[in-house]
Amino acid sequence: MSLSMHAMTVEQFVPMLKNLNRILEKAEAFVAAKKIEAGVLEGLRLAPDMLSFTRQVQLASDFAKNSAARLAGVEPPKFEDNEKTLEDLKARVSKTIDWLDTLTPAQFAGAETRHIVLPLRTRTIEMDGLPFLQKWVLPNFFFHVTTVYALLRHVGVEVGKQDFLGGV
Amino acid sequence: MSLSMHAMTVEQFVPMLKNLNRILEKAEAFVAAKKIEAGVLEGLRLAPDMLSFTRQVQLASDFAKNSAARLAGVEPPKFEDNEKTLEDLKARVSKTIDWLDTLTPAQFAGAETRHIVLPLRTRTIEMDGLPFLQKWVLPNFFFHVTTVYALLRHVGVEVGKQDFLGGV
Repeated sequence: MSLSMHAMTVEQFVPMLKNLNRILEKAEAFVAAKKIEAGVLEGLRLAPDMLSFTRQVQLASDFAKNSAARLAGVEPPKFEDNEKTLEDLKARVSKTIDWLDTLTPAQFAGAETRHIVLPLRTRTIEMDGLPFLQKWVLPNFFFHVTTVYALLRHVGVEVGKQDFLGGV
Repeated sequence: MSLSMHAMTVEQFVPMLKNLNRILEKAEAFVAAKKIEAGVLEGLRLAPDMLSFTRQVQLASDFAKNSAARLAGVEPPKFEDNEKTLEDLKARVSKTIDWLDTLTPAQFAGAETRHIVLPLRTRTIEMDGLPFLQKWVLPNFFFHVTTVYALLRHVGVEVGKQDFLGGV
């Protein structure tokens, strides 16, 4: 394996999303053990004006699939953001992994200089593939995975850094 | 600029550390406005068995400088971890940036296949440069920067995603 835009996206996202799913499994075990009401953990926020736990997981999925798609020049699958339970969220992450696994290194040839146009709600970001990866993709992806972990740690779920790193 | 181990380390860390310092400035303004006792914010933890705010900042610095050093085959500066105040922490981050800026892309030639030996407290990690970057360096670096942000958001400091991303 050598350094490539595929290595920095698909090969980076897939293991982290697998780690995320193992963290979600620990969250499920916590909810079962503590008999926590359905929807409570899914609705947690670190601050009232931050996004909920569910949205953080959905965004980790979105940044992974949408970023890889843009860099590979293909259409990502669209998910409906209708997940209600931890089980649903794990399935969302698994679907994301399965789709990322269909992408090949060859599809990322030239991705570092591909012109990326990213329409946001209030503006459009335009930059080449490499700065897009550095300034947008990796910071956002890791932000949401870490925030999921932080929320669970904050409420006492027994997850540790090794779960986040996947047992390196 | 092209994709390289320098691009994925130095060029990734320096802007994020600059964002971190702007976030620390906002924390200072919050502490001043709310007349928060010295050391309180620096000692915050998201969970009692997580590391403190101060350690999270120090570790963001450590993962940046130590990882870049290992991949470039040079010795990183050693910092004493004696920071007490937000001002100290900002200086620590600035020193880290200044040192990272001395590294050149040429020093990272062949870094993706460089054999990395990383002694930890209880074991030693050994892997080539690219998997080291993917499995250890980037997840750990972003973990600590995001956790600093999460801690500040959690206690009400007015930082937003744009501060984390550096106004992309």
